Amino acid sequence: MADPLPQGSVIGILGGGQLGRMLSVAAARLGYRTHVFEPGADPPAGDVSARVTRAPYDDVAALRAFAESVAVVTYEFENVPAKALDVIEPLCPIRPGRRALAISQDRLAEKTFLTDIGLKTAPFAAVATPAEFEAALVRTGMPAILKTRRLGYDGKGQVRIAAPAEAEAVLAAIQGAEAILEGWVGFSREVSVIAARGMDGRIAAYDPGENLHEDGILRRTTVPARLSRAEATDAVLIAGRILNALDYVGVIGVELFVTPEGFVVNEFAPRVHNSGHWTQTGCLVDQFEQHVRAIAGWPLGDGARHADVTMENLIGDDVLRVAEIAWEPASIHLYGKGEVRPGRKMGHVNRITGGVTSGRR
Amino acid sequence: MADPLPQGSVIGILGGGQLGRMLSVAAARLGYRTHVFEPGADPPAGDVSARVTRAPYDDVAALRAFAESVAVVTYEFENVPAKALDVIEPLCPIRPGRRALAISQDRLAEKTFLTDIGLKTAPFAAVATPAEFEAALVRTGMPAILKTRRLGYDGKGQVRIAAPAEAEAVLAAIQGAEAILEGWVGFSREVSVIAARGMDGRIAAYDPGENLHEDGILRRTTVPARLSRAEATDAVLIAGRILNALDYVGVIGVELFVTPEGFVVNEFAPRVHNSGHWTQTGCLVDQFEQHVRAIAGWPLGDGARHADVTMENLIGDDVLRVAEIAWEPASIHLYGKGEVRPGRKMGHVNRITGGVTSGRR
Repeated sequence: MADPLPQGSVIGILGGGQLGRMLSVAAARLGYRTHVFEPGADPPAGDVSARVTRAPYDDVAALRAFAESVAVVTYEFENVPAKALDVIEPLCPIRPGRRALAISQDRLAEKTFLTDIGLKTAPFAAVATPAEFEAALVRTGMPAILKTRRLGYDGKGQVRIAAPAEAEAVLAAIQGAEAILEGWVGFSREVSVIAARGMDGRIAAYDPGENLHEDGILRRTTVPARLSRAEATDAVLIAGRILNALDYVGVIGVELFVTPEGFVVNEFAPRVHNSGHWTQTGCLVDQFEQHVRAIAGWPLGDGARHADVTMENLIGDDVLRVAEIAWEPASIHLYGKGEVRPGRKMGHVNRITGGVTSGRR
Repeated sequence: MADPLPQGSVIGILGGGQLGRMLSVAAARLGYRTHVFEPGADPPAGDVSARVTRAPYDDVAALRAFAESVAVVTYEFENVPAKALDVIEPLCPIRPGRRALAISQDRLAEKTFLTDIGLKTAPFAAVATPAEFEAALVRTGMPAILKTRRLGYDGKGQVRIAAPAEAEAVLAAIQGAEAILEGWVGFSREVSVIAARGMDGRIAAYDPGENLHEDGILRRTTVPARLSRAEATDAVLIAGRILNALDYVGVIGVELFVTPEGFVVNEFAPRVHNSGHWTQTGCLVDQFEQHVRAIAGWPLGDGARHADVTMENLIGDDVLRVAEIAWEPASIHLYGKGEVRPGRKMGHVNRITGGVTSGRR
C-alpha cells in the first residue's frame, strides 16, 4: 500500500455544506488541512476549514488555483459540474473518481449500471416524449414515478403518476428535462449501507441503518436496522459489488428497499451520506473520518460499532427544539446555517439507545 | 436561566494549541464560530476556526479588536498574562472568570486557596531566600520539591530536594524566581476529575480518570479509575467545592493524589484538560462541548459515560506509530503540528476497553 498523504497536506472539498463541514473536522483530526470551494456565501464548512475559495463552478481560474493548492480533491455532493472536474483533473487526483460521479448524476445511467452488475432496481425506462412515455408505462406498470434524470434530491424533481392520461401534464411539469420513469416498488422499509473502499481495494462497511423519510427528506436513521443477519450481510455485499465495479475510493451511501423478494437498490450517493451520521456516536471511526482515510491512503477503520444509535435530522423549525434537546443525553450537531427555512437541514441529533458489550470484535 | 448565546455568535479563544483546536470544533458543533488569538505561527486551532489573529499578548490594539469581535472570551491555557485580560475585560465577558485564572497562575495562591476551602494539599511554604528555604524545609520535611510559583507545566520549573545542603544550588537553578517548596506526598496513584459548572450554577462531573505520567508528562488516562464508589464520589465533591468557591463557569481539571489518608489535591487547571480527552469517545457530550455549553449559557451535559476508555498521548516520536495504530480499532486525534519535538504533544488515541450497557442512566 502506498504511503498515506503526509501530515499537513491540504484536502480540497468541493461544496461547503454540512457534509463538507464534518469532512473538514475529520480531516483535521487526522492531521490534514482543508480548502473548501463553494459558490455560496458563508458556507457551513468555512467555520472549520483552513481556507475557503468562494467562486462559481465555472470560474476556471479559481478552480485551477484551488486544484493547485491541494493534494487531492473530494466532494460533498454529486452534482459537481463535469466541466469543473475537467479543469481539476489534470492538476490533482479526484477521489472518488469521475465515473462514480458521472453515473450517480444521471438516474438513467445509475439504474443501467446497477442492473448491468446484476443488482435489482425498480423497473425503469428513459422518457423524453409523450410517445416514449406510453411505452415506458407499459414497462414499469402503475403507479410509477417520473423523475428528472439529473439534479433531483430530497424528493425534488419527481412526479407520481397514477394514470396514463396524466402523461402530458407530467412532462410539462418537468419542463422538457430528460426523464426516467420508474415503476413502483412495494417495499416494507428502506435501509442504507454506508461502506468504503480504500486505495488498496479493501472494503469496510458499517452496519446497515433503517431510514424513515417524511416528505421525501430523511427524518431518522436507526441502527441496527430490523434485518436478519443474512439480510444485513447481503446488504453489505451489494454495496461491495458497487464499490468494486466502480474501482471506487472513498465512502459511498447505498439506499436499499426491503421487499419480499429481497433488496432493490434505490440509489447510491458517491459521498458521505446523511444516513451515516449515526457513526459519529456509534463508531470509533465515523463515516467522515473513513472517507478521509480512504482518499488520503490510510487503512480503513473496520466499521465496528459499539452502540445502538438513532439519528434524528433537525429540519427547518426542528432546530428550535434544540433548547429542549440540550437537556437530554444526546449528541447535538448544528450546521451553523444562519437562516431557518422549511425543509432545510439545520442539524442532527444522535441518541444512544443501547450498548454493545465491547468496542472490539 | 438566561438565554444561551445566539446561533452564529463568535467565541474568542486565547491560545491556538490543541485544546483550542478541539474547543473550536466543539463550538462549531453547537452552531458557533470561533476566533483564535495566538502569538505563534500556524496554530493548530487555526485549521478549524473561522478566524485567527496572530499577535503577541501585549498588543493592545489587537487584543481590543479581538475582544470587540467576539461574544465571550475563553482560554486554553492558564498562563494568559493579566495585562491582556485587563484589556479584554471591559469589552467582553471572560469565562472562566479572572479569579480562577489568577489563582491557578500562582502555585502559592492555589495551595492557599485550596487549604482555605478545607481541602488537603501537600505541605507547602513560600521560599525566596536561603533563610526562608531552611524554615520551609522544616515545615515540609524531605524529600521536597521546589517549584517556581509561576509558569511551570509538564514538570518544567521543578527541582527535587533531598538534602538541606542543596538549598543554594537549587535556588540558583530557578534563577531567583519566586518559589514554593512542597512536601512529598506518598501517593499510590493520581486521578483527575473533569467537572464543569454552568452559568446557572449547576455542576456536572465526568467519572474520574486514572493518570499515568512519565517524565512529568501525562502518558495515559484510564476510565474508570480504580476507586471505590465512595472515593469516586468524594473526588467529584472536591471538584464541586472548588467550582463553587470560585463561582466558576466552564470546565475545570482537578488532579488528585490517592493516599492512605484520602485525596490530596495536586492542582487544578481552569480549562479543558488533557486527562479529559477520553470523553470524546466515552461520552455523548465531551469536555470540549461541555466547556462551550457552560460559557455559552447552555444546560450542561450530565457527564454520563457509555464506555470504558483508555486515552494515550502521542508525545514526540510516538506520532510515528500512527501508521500502525491506524490498523487498530481506535480513535486517533492528531493536532496538525508540523514539527515533531521530544516532549511535544502531537496527538492522542482513545481506545474502548469495555462497554456500559446503556448510554442512559
